[in-house]
Amino acid sequence: MDPIVSLLSSLLENVRPLDAGEPAQYIPELASADPERFAMAAVGPRGVVRSVGEDNVEFTIQSVSKPFVLALALAMHGRDHVLARVGVEPSGEPFNAISLEPNTGRPANPLVNAGAIATTGLIPGSDRHERTATIVAGLSRFAGRALTVDEAVYESESETGDRNRALAHLMRSYGVLHENVDEVVESYFRQCSVLVTVRDIAVMAGTLAFAGRNPLTGEQVVPESVARDVVSIMTSCGMYDFSGEWLMRVGLPSKSGVAGGLVSVAPSQFGVGVFSPRLDSHGNSVRGSILVERLSREFGMHVFDRHESITRPGIAVERTSEGLFVRLGGELAFSGAERVLVTLRELIHGADVNYPVFLDVSELAHLHPAALTALEAQLRDLGTQVRIIQ
Amino acid sequence: MDPIVSLLSSLLENVRPLDAGEPAQYIPELASADPERFAMAAVGPRGVVRSVGEDNVEFTIQSVSKPFVLALALAMHGRDHVLARVGVEPSGEPFNAISLEPNTGRPANPLVNAGAIATTGLIPGSDRHERTATIVAGLSRFAGRALTVDEAVYESESETGDRNRALAHLMRSYGVLHENVDEVVESYFRQCSVLVTVRDIAVMAGTLAFAGRNPLTGEQVVPESVARDVVSIMTSCGMYDFSGEWLMRVGLPSKSGVAGGLVSVAPSQFGVGVFSPRLDSHGNSVRGSILVERLSREFGMHVFDRHESITRPGIAVERTSEGLFVRLGGELAFSGAERVLVTLRELIHGADVNYPVFLDVSELAHLHPAALTALEAQLRDLGTQVRIIQ
Amino acid sequence: MDPIVSLLSSLLENVRPLDAGEPAQYIPELASADPERFAMAAVGPRGVVRSVGEDNVEFTIQSVSKPFVLALALAMHGRDHVLARVGVEPSGEPFNAISLEPNTGRPANPLVNAGAIATTGLIPGSDRHERTATIVAGLSRFAGRALTVDEAVYESESETGDRNRALAHLMRSYGVLHENVDEVVESYFRQCSVLVTVRDIAVMAGTLAFAGRNPLTGEQVVPESVARDVVSIMTSCGMYDFSGEWLMRVGLPSKSGVAGGLVSVAPSQFGVGVFSPRLDSHGNSVRGSILVERLSREFGMHVFDRHESITRPGIAVERTSEGLFVRLGGELAFSGAERVLVTLRELIHGADVNYPVFLDVSELAHLHPAALTALEAQLRDLGTQVRIIQ
Amino acid sequence: MDPIVSLLSSLLENVRPLDAGEPAQYIPELASADPERFAMAAVGPRGVVRSVGEDNVEFTIQSVSKPFVLALALAMHGRDHVLARVGVEPSGEPFNAISLEPNTGRPANPLVNAGAIATTGLIPGSDRHERTATIVAGLSRFAGRALTVDEAVYESESETGDRNRALAHLMRSYGVLHENVDEVVESYFRQCSVLVTVRDIAVMAGTLAFAGRNPLTGEQVVPESVARDVVSIMTSCGMYDFSGEWLMRVGLPSKSGVAGGLVSVAPSQFGVGVFSPRLDSHGNSVRGSILVERLSREFGMHVFDRHESITRPGIAVERTSEGLFVRLGGELAFSGAERVLVTLRELIHGADVNYPVFLDVSELAHLHPAALTALEAQLRDLGTQVRIIQ
Repeated sequence: MDPIVSLLSSLLENVRPLDAGEPAQYIPELASADPERFAMAAVGPRGVVRSVGEDNVEFTIQSVSKPFVLALALAMHGRDHVLARVGVEPSGEPFNAISLEPNTGRPANPLVNAGAIATTGLIPGSDRHERTATIVAGLSRFAGRALTVDEAVYESESETGDRNRALAHLMRSYGVLHENVDEVVESYFRQCSVLVTVRDIAVMAGTLAFAGRNPLTGEQVVPESVARDVVSIMTSCGMYDFSGEWLMRVGLPSKSGVAGGLVSVAPSQFGVGVFSPRLDSHGNSVRGSILVERLSREFGMHVFDRHESITRPGIAVERTSEGLFVRLGGELAFSGAERVLVTLRELIHGADVNYPVFLDVSELAHLHPAALTALEAQLRDLGTQVRIIQ
Repeated sequence: MDPIVSLLSSLLENVRPLDAGEPAQYIPELASADPERFAMAAVGPRGVVRSVGEDNVEFTIQSVSKPFVLALALAMHGRDHVLARVGVEPSGEPFNAISLEPNTGRPANPLVNAGAIATTGLIPGSDRHERTATIVAGLSRFAGRALTVDEAVYESESETGDRNRALAHLMRSYGVLHENVDEVVESYFRQCSVLVTVRDIAVMAGTLAFAGRNPLTGEQVVPESVARDVVSIMTSCGMYDFSGEWLMRVGLPSKSGVAGGLVSVAPSQFGVGVFSPRLDSHGNSVRGSILVERLSREFGMHVFDRHESITRPGIAVERTSEGLFVRLGGELAFSGAERVLVTLRELIHGADVNYPVFLDVSELAHLHPAALTALEAQLRDLGTQVRIIQ
Repeated sequence: MDPIVSLLSSLLENVRPLDAGEPAQYIPELASADPERFAMAAVGPRGVVRSVGEDNVEFTIQSVSKPFVLALALAMHGRDHVLARVGVEPSGEPFNAISLEPNTGRPANPLVNAGAIATTGLIPGSDRHERTATIVAGLSRFAGRALTVDEAVYESESETGDRNRALAHLMRSYGVLHENVDEVVESYFRQCSVLVTVRDIAVMAGTLAFAGRNPLTGEQVVPESVARDVVSIMTSCGMYDFSGEWLMRVGLPSKSGVAGGLVSVAPSQFGVGVFSPRLDSHGNSVRGSILVERLSREFGMHVFDRHESITRPGIAVERTSEGLFVRLGGELAFSGAERVLVTLRELIHGADVNYPVFLDVSELAHLHPAALTALEAQLRDLGTQVRIIQ
Repeated sequence: MDPIVSLLSSLLENVRPLDAGEPAQYIPELASADPERFAMAAVGPRGVVRSVGEDNVEFTIQSVSKPFVLALALAMHGRDHVLARVGVEPSGEPFNAISLEPNTGRPANPLVNAGAIATTGLIPGSDRHERTATIVAGLSRFAGRALTVDEAVYESESETGDRNRALAHLMRSYGVLHENVDEVVESYFRQCSVLVTVRDIAVMAGTLAFAGRNPLTGEQVVPESVARDVVSIMTSCGMYDFSGEWLMRVGLPSKSGVAGGLVSVAPSQFGVGVFSPRLDSHGNSVRGSILVERLSREFGMHVFDRHESITRPGIAVERTSEGLFVRLGGELAFSGAERVLVTLRELIHGADVNYPVFLDVSELAHLHPAALTALEAQLRDLGTQVRIIQ
């Protein structure tokens, strides 16, 4: 078994016994979700998607769609145009709060319902079908495959959607939403009803993590600057009024959805997706949140961890008569292991199998256990000629 | 002239003509500040402090003290104990808002006045003098020199401090502040009245940027985990209800003070300090904010820029018969140039002067102009044997 | 000229020069209103309507409809049923605030837009036309004549009504509004577009002042207990977040409309209507408010003035050989004069014209000037045999 | 037994079994109050105080002092000066809310803690002792006897008074409170600790009900206009965020205190005081509130009941050969019975005992049962010659 998959699997199993919370109850399709379902996927810079648990179960994307539709709107209209319609500050209020900025009438940010509806309104389309088609196509580019809408969920969302209609009418009364309220709101309900797997949302998160370039398809879905803006906004506002504590504890820009989906972005490192339908009082997946917190800690993924120190001075390569010495300095976290392997693969590729390769980690100031696991496991796959000097 | 100093100087002069805003008016000592004063300093990982403008003028630290006293409290008591007294979410309100969390009575975060006073209360001391002494000593360790209190400013702060007394009494009524209100508030006023230069606050910011280790003195002032927590909180809450937009636009955890000081942290890269007394309506230094925004853009310092890519595959060193080839891959931003130089210095140190060194930047995916400037300038200092291959 | 009309006319002319404020601008029909129009009407317990100024100009009733539709709802459903849908506390917020009670989801009170829409929803009707017909019929009973809807204003209200639609959807999402949102909102817009004159709204106010009995038609439009409840709610909430100061200064339960109408209720004394389209920042008629304040002061109509003292010991009648002596005790304010005249008319009716009548006011503790004016003027109309003993 | 006392007693006994709520717990002196204590007193215009239950038990006046100190401040400084420091709108928030008006910094009204402290600050005094002396002297004039301070309660209030100190410092920071915070707050704590009986507070309420004139001592304690203003403010704000519903249901301007006291004002009719220490979640006496609600209903005291109709046409007196006929018209509620008796007493005084007196109530539109009870009982005391014609 792939050693990283093995690590992920062990994390998943540790968290699985937690059974707090319950699935969203406001529509039958969500209320009847199997609460035991649990899955996680992660994608690295080279597009390898690793997943564990029920990774082929489809669920509705719900609010996880918000940062990606925001990215589409930013790519189409530019930052200034979008900011005229929606702010980027946490609201200090629940996700469905009925509050707009006093002077501008803008919703607080694009990741609360009001702001997400305003953002959906920015996606062009002569009617709800055209707008929906554009959105689904955009989300599909983030996911790297053609996504579809769950019409039953859409119908239920629309039936119970008075609060979102209220938000849309309110924004229209402020001139923040220019479009036809009914058209926009129905598009929004369809956007929330797009079906995804945990692998899909990991790739979507990965597209943001790797500067707008889908690691699976290689497509530059949105410009780098747009990806950076979206990651910034997810940092500030992605976990609603828990965003500050989430940044401190977990350190990964994230966004959850009411069906149990959760995406996390480790910039330049990983895109992560989790799925578990039981929600806490904030509407976040209980096991999903804890799993991401542990993943971040275990793999050293906090954005303010000193990732860069792993390459200070980085990787020094010296060819001697005894063999090829690859010396690592600084710290090595899980995220650095992958890079080291890239370098090693290139060095070994086509090399004389009798010329030994030594990976010297003895001078590392700190070596994270998960990094050593990953190195050992992958070196085994490469062949026996690489020896680790500890 | 040092090429980095030259870059900083040119940035400063570009921003200098802006004259919007005015110095704080609530006490005579601040109201009478020379509004033209303007200075900036930056410190890198090796402790070199570069400064431009009026870098030896002292001003009171004011709210810039807040993240550092927070760091001291976290180091003394641990995260859980501190979080029992103060939250870490942006308040969505002005810095001096009279609002506490509904259920807990905690102030929103340690960077608004209420939270800062609660934090000051966590610093031990049998009376205000002992507590003040502990705080000043702690701030001095962050600055790398012995700081002192401006007693005239302190007196004025104390005279006009009814709002802060109100906050303290309110927190005491909620059981969030256990200490004697008068003792804590007077300590807080003294903490705000500590005199610093722009070089001092750059070093203080640098101590957070380099994981709690003062880059000037080498002292580990607070543990790495504490520095990470403080940087996280500055990201979420440091610019009050502008924090989300600041993160998106500037991407540097920051904190301003009402005397015109401003610190910014570029994790693992720089500590930055700016001083300019004219304030905007939020109480942030007008020129200071713009200068940091431009600095971040020019030097590629946004936390969600792809800093790490500069070392993918990083620095590859190969000794050939023609000379020593140092090949750079990925992107090279200003912040990476410094590291390249460290490596080069070590390679060159004690090497045969007739054995030529080539720095190959031709395979970089992207080379930031500021980075090339820095490389060229510093290589000149090292001697002529290093040739850049573009 | 009727002396009371003369008094009203002089009050009106004193206030007329004020030209602060401007007509409501949100729809063209209101924006184009002649700002100079000014009229007032008052109706006493016997149904005499006295009016001055442009008393036959029609304008839309707007929010002046709210207390009357509330009265209809209370009469139909009872207090408990209505209170389950809407509170009775001032909101401390503007009339169109988007806020509902935290736990119940009820709007603050029936006199802000949200509460008024909820109240309209309580009026039965299989569709908007039936509901509108019921409402217009009810308002007509309050006014004592058949009222009609201004369809042009209705169309404009509907076109710009997104904020009210937002409120209705929001209440529906809370389960406070059970009815179809579109049906209710369109009925509400029509209710606001009912055409009235200042005489109409004076009679409407009079119906509340006289315990639910229309003083013009004699119809008991709503039960006394309903009228009392509505007057109580107008006292607490009728002038939005100025209600407390209005009660202190003016002391008359009142309600204004955005077209410039204003009704005031002097319980058991008068119903008052005013019309002047220029509004202040709260949306209240500028001249209307001042006129009612002066009217209240001049005529001693504040609800907490000592009206009752006029009849302590009241009216004592004694037949002597010299003539009939009617002696008044206590205080006599304007409002009491009317009653004295009722008694006198009955005593004089069919009496011997040679048997003189004396009205003794010499023992009154206080005689308001407006009361004496009213007595003298009306006694003149009755014939010369009544002599006032001062 | 006096028939009114008998009525009051029966009301009290009906309410007595209710045992919801508990005494205030924040200081030991209140927490240890005997929760079973229960008493009521009422005073009419002629100064007769009727009381039932434990009417001689002393308790601390607490917030019941607020309207009376407000009256003193209004009498000293005039309405405009007082309104510059404090508003008159309900706050929509709890009594101890930390919120001031956005633009002015004024507390919402004088009956919440912040406003009451600002009002206390308006009472002159070179230090806390002088200010306290002035306040206690003023409250004593309202009560008609010399009141004293419970020093033990004062000490406890002061020890736990951080929230009130916070409010005072906050107002001082806004320039709403000009005086020394410590002096004002300590005076306020003493004001709250004044000892009263239920009879005292009934007389205090009566002084407001009878236009500022103490019905017991006959002293004009404050001008009529001041009493009217205070009654208006009690109507709007006296029961905090329950004031609107209280006005609708009970219709008596009221104010409660945390020790279990409650005063209600029936303008021109009665002053009422109740005492029962168990409080509801708003801090109002549970049994006290219910008792006043029943009293109002039973005795027809709602301010918007048609009290005045009792004298339309009032009392007509006719001397015939058969006897003296006193004919009543309109409605007769409890409050009118007292006046009828005054008239009868005067007519009977010194009259021929053989000349019979007939009280004709047969033409009354409505005769409240409590009014008939009161008439019958008191006529019995006058002698048998008065016969009631029903």
